[in-house]
Amino acid sequence: MHPMLNTAIKAARRAGAIINRASLDLERLQVGRKGPNDYVTEVDQAAEDAIVDVLRSAYPDHGFLCEESGVHPAPGQAEGEVPEFQWIVDPLDGTTNFIHGLPIYAISIALAQRGQVTQAVIYDPNRNELFTASRGGGAFLNDRRVRVSGLRRYPDAILGAHIPGSAFVATAQARFSGLLSECAAARRLGSTVLDLAYVASGRLDGFCGVKLKPWDLAAGGLLILEAGGLIADFDGEQGWMKSGSVLAATPKIFPQMLGYLQG
Amino acid sequence: MHPMLNTAIKAARRAGAIINRASLDLERLQVGRKGPNDYVTEVDQAAEDAIVDVLRSAYPDHGFLCEESGVHPAPGQAEGEVPEFQWIVDPLDGTTNFIHGLPIYAISIALAQRGQVTQAVIYDPNRNELFTASRGGGAFLNDRRVRVSGLRRYPDAILGAHIPGSAFVATAQARFSGLLSECAAARRLGSTVLDLAYVASGRLDGFCGVKLKPWDLAAGGLLILEAGGLIADFDGEQGWMKSGSVLAATPKIFPQMLGYLQG
Repeated sequence: MHPMLNTAIKAARRAGAIINRASLDLERLQVGRKGPNDYVTEVDQAAEDAIVDVLRSAYPDHGFLCEESGVHPAPGQAEGEVPEFQWIVDPLDGTTNFIHGLPIYAISIALAQRGQVTQAVIYDPNRNELFTASRGGGAFLNDRRVRVSGLRRYPDAILGAHIPGSAFVATAQARFSGLLSECAAARRLGSTVLDLAYVASGRLDGFCGVKLKPWDLAAGGLLILEAGGLIADFDGEQGWMKSGSVLAATPKIFPQMLGYLQG
Repeated sequence: MHPMLNTAIKAARRAGAIINRASLDLERLQVGRKGPNDYVTEVDQAAEDAIVDVLRSAYPDHGFLCEESGVHPAPGQAEGEVPEFQWIVDPLDGTTNFIHGLPIYAISIALAQRGQVTQAVIYDPNRNELFTASRGGGAFLNDRRVRVSGLRRYPDAILGAHIPGSAFVATAQARFSGLLSECAAARRLGSTVLDLAYVASGRLDGFCGVKLKPWDLAAGGLLILEAGGLIADFDGEQGWMKSGSVLAATPKIFPQMLGYLQG
């Protein structure tokens, strides 16, 4: 196993322990708000600090892009310059679920090397499930190799969707209508990071999401590619980390899904 | 604990063991189809048989209403007559999730006494979580008393929704638009039985579902009432077990939710 992946796993497990302790005592948490659908918790911050500490101790020259604290430049990095190594961290994806005690949330850590993701860890502290990938080395769930599902027909598919509440029912979002209604079942689990890990491991056949951030996508994207899946934006192009609009699926149904969006 | 509840717990755990064994070896399952969104599995049938065996051994005079095998009259019961004791059984709710390995499914067992549900068990074999209620005795999760959430404002709510794919985006279903878009977050977990157990334990603040069957609702309905919640049909009336249209929530937000549907 690549030593950088190993360090990322250590960081994810450290954060998982913090999150698990906190989940036992949710009532004492002091929950703030950053928006109607987006809570900040002390746990989020503590988990992120723990991850950054572990990674920075091992790799003091690396930069960071974190969900809570934003960009930490690498030492000596000029403003606007992309560091050679940048860790992309979401310490707790599915915060709304977490606060309610709904046991669907996860930690995401990716390493980008000159802008290309090469290491990925997604850790579900609730189920103690660890999803990992290194570029060119396949995708794993708890040391067992995983692949995307072998599904061939979109009408048999189970789809994960991250389309915020207002968009989900507004007629302006008719572009999603076919995609959401022609599959066997659509799920809204409330954690994009887990949605992507579940596509990589065949628990979902596909995923469609909008308004996503790099820390939602970086690790899951590599997992899906290493599991034999496809991931792209709604034009079938590779700008999804920037645009935040993402389609991911097992290869046979991916073109069918793209067809719905391109109408 | 009421002896009938105790027997239902034994039956649910027996079915859970069957389901857990099967989930380890999903590929070998022979999966049939009863409709585009509704799979039958051997597991479903085996789990139901196990539940009926346990209950019938203890209570040979009781009748059954089962998801897979339908009505089993009580001995001596005339056609169309409601038996004094009827067990209402869903051996595996969330079959589509189960088949994909998506770990969100559960077993539901309720006892109706002269048509009124008096005992309820929902068991999540994946997380080994046992939700139980006896009429007048409160609701429990693994022996810990649970209550619905204390939420007061619907815009802060996390909602569980069971509105089949086509309905979710069709403009004909505009009646759900406010309900789905005005909450903090809507979830589609794919198991109504767990949705209801999660409302009873405060993990969701409310639930809205259509086209549901008595075996989806019987146990969860009692759990919610015993946890201090409200459950009704879309007119705020008590015909929900028959109509299959259900609204359930913590008391403060229930009228707000009803308002969206009555527009």
